[in-house]
Amino acid sequence: MNFKERLSTPVVMENPQADRVKDIAKLATRAARTKTGHFLVEGPQAVREALKAHQTKPLLDAVYITERAFDRHPDIVDLLEDVHGTPTPEPGRKVFMRMVTEPVLAAMAESVSPQGIIAVAFQNDIAPSDIWGEGAINPKLIAVLARVQDPGNAGTILRAADAAGASLVITTKGSVDLYNPKTVRSTAGSIFHVPILQGIELEEFAEDAKAQGIGVLAADGYGNVNLDDLVDAAAAARLGVEASERPAYDLARPTMWLFGNEAQGLTRAEKAVANAKVSVPVHGSAESLNVSTAAAVCLYSSARAIFSAKEK
Amino acid sequence: MNFKERLSTPVVMENPQADRVKDIAKLATRAARTKTGHFLVEGPQAVREALKAHQTKPLLDAVYITERAFDRHPDIVDLLEDVHGTPTPEPGRKVFMRMVTEPVLAAMAESVSPQGIIAVAFQNDIAPSDIWGEGAINPKLIAVLARVQDPGNAGTILRAADAAGASLVITTKGSVDLYNPKTVRSTAGSIFHVPILQGIELEEFAEDAKAQGIGVLAADGYGNVNLDDLVDAAAAARLGVEASERPAYDLARPTMWLFGNEAQGLTRAEKAVANAKVSVPVHGSAESLNVSTAAAVCLYSSARAIFSAKEK
Repeated sequence: MNFKERLSTPVVMENPQADRVKDIAKLATRAARTKTGHFLVEGPQAVREALKAHQTKPLLDAVYITERAFDRHPDIVDLLEDVHGTPTPEPGRKVFMRMVTEPVLAAMAESVSPQGIIAVAFQNDIAPSDIWGEGAINPKLIAVLARVQDPGNAGTILRAADAAGASLVITTKGSVDLYNPKTVRSTAGSIFHVPILQGIELEEFAEDAKAQGIGVLAADGYGNVNLDDLVDAAAAARLGVEASERPAYDLARPTMWLFGNEAQGLTRAEKAVANAKVSVPVHGSAESLNVSTAAAVCLYSSARAIFSAKEK
Repeated sequence: MNFKERLSTPVVMENPQADRVKDIAKLATRAARTKTGHFLVEGPQAVREALKAHQTKPLLDAVYITERAFDRHPDIVDLLEDVHGTPTPEPGRKVFMRMVTEPVLAAMAESVSPQGIIAVAFQNDIAPSDIWGEGAINPKLIAVLARVQDPGNAGTILRAADAAGASLVITTKGSVDLYNPKTVRSTAGSIFHVPILQGIELEEFAEDAKAQGIGVLAADGYGNVNLDDLVDAAAAARLGVEASERPAYDLARPTMWLFGNEAQGLTRAEKAVANAKVSVPVHGSAESLNVSTAAAVCLYSSARAIFSAKEK
């Protein structure tokens, strides 16, 4: 019996009304995700990354694929074979895989075009006790989403944070759930790479971070510190040039960036925990920057200072 | 008769089946936009920017508002009063304004939540003859979208380009239409700030740009030039530090950036027109960067070098 047949045994799932299908579809809601501790991973790109990550640390519960997607993505089929029958994070349970019809896949999906493959994964927030100290991740670059609402923005920031080398992404209470299917899609797999921690109390967390030597920067369109000035000062320090004046903040420090709500930005209380309020300069006549654009520019500015300083 | 009554005279539009309503709804399609030369502007943020821009250079054809939105946005009402009766770009025609019912607004809109206000604007691509030479815009920073497909990405790049001080945004043949309602929304008004030119032949345009002293950079995940190295070299030059080696490209030069299709990136032919292929370094384990994130980082890197050099 070849692998395709094994995935179709005992039967291909073809009833969109089946309880299992309905339970998966419910993962589009935060309530069902909270209750089950699961979340939905849709489409080849995200599922591929989930399968790869699972081989380092179990995270998958199940994978469902249509015959068309099976035939179309031989690289994913290879990964499926590797993962088939491996343990899930739940003791005694193995990853479930099954061939499904197109209507079943459509009934499971939140996305209008899941492209024939869906996985169910276990949520995996990092424990606060695994952040600081010996054997912990001790992040040098952290992105905090403070009441960011748009799932796409949140996912784009998470993806940019991953690329910039951030080793922790945090949401405060009142933010979109990072396990929202739309967010998961827009992270393009980064949700499986970067440790995340959700629903923190910002003030308390910032105190802990500061005690560990982390500086806190608020990305704030009205901030009195210009990001370009910090970047130039960091470059000068790397080049061994004496600065004419001490910069407001040393970008080579381990840093936690705060990014605010799309409409309101950061509140006064949120900004109050920061060591500096930093604005990305607006050269043209744009009213403001999209929060995900600002986050990309800020995180990359830090990355250049933190990681290139380390390399030298 | 107060302004609200004037907008309701002779009648509030209340028939979602009216021809005028249907014609506006059709602007969600590229075919109707091409035929009429109009496009749809939805929601308070975008309409506000359109009204402001119209006062500098006529661009509006009509504005439709619900009573609820009228009562909710006094600042927009002020702008409406200023614009009421002013000329459109079409000789002899004045900007049409009318109060409409919620069902009429919903029937006009492409968005599911247009928030009570919609405008129809005239497309306004810059003429190629207005780009170079005396009295022309002579852009120092240009963003080119090469077959970018996603309307949200295109809008986000246009908005980031505006903020970074780009004075021209271009699309090549096969790109999403920048006048797509989704793109217009995600530009947050920047479509009214930055001159745009659509559907160019890249090779030909790049030759013209190079003849004007513009350097061309391809944003390419596999590029052999590291953006960080260019940024550091530009900072060194500004600080008067002698570089150990000549950088592959001087970021302080007037520059045209090429950003490619989401799935395929830039083609070989597109990259061939560039002076250098530049990669944004990926520090973490992200597979790649979202094109709009990469564009923000690239454009801001250029902006810092071009505009801070000019300031000094």
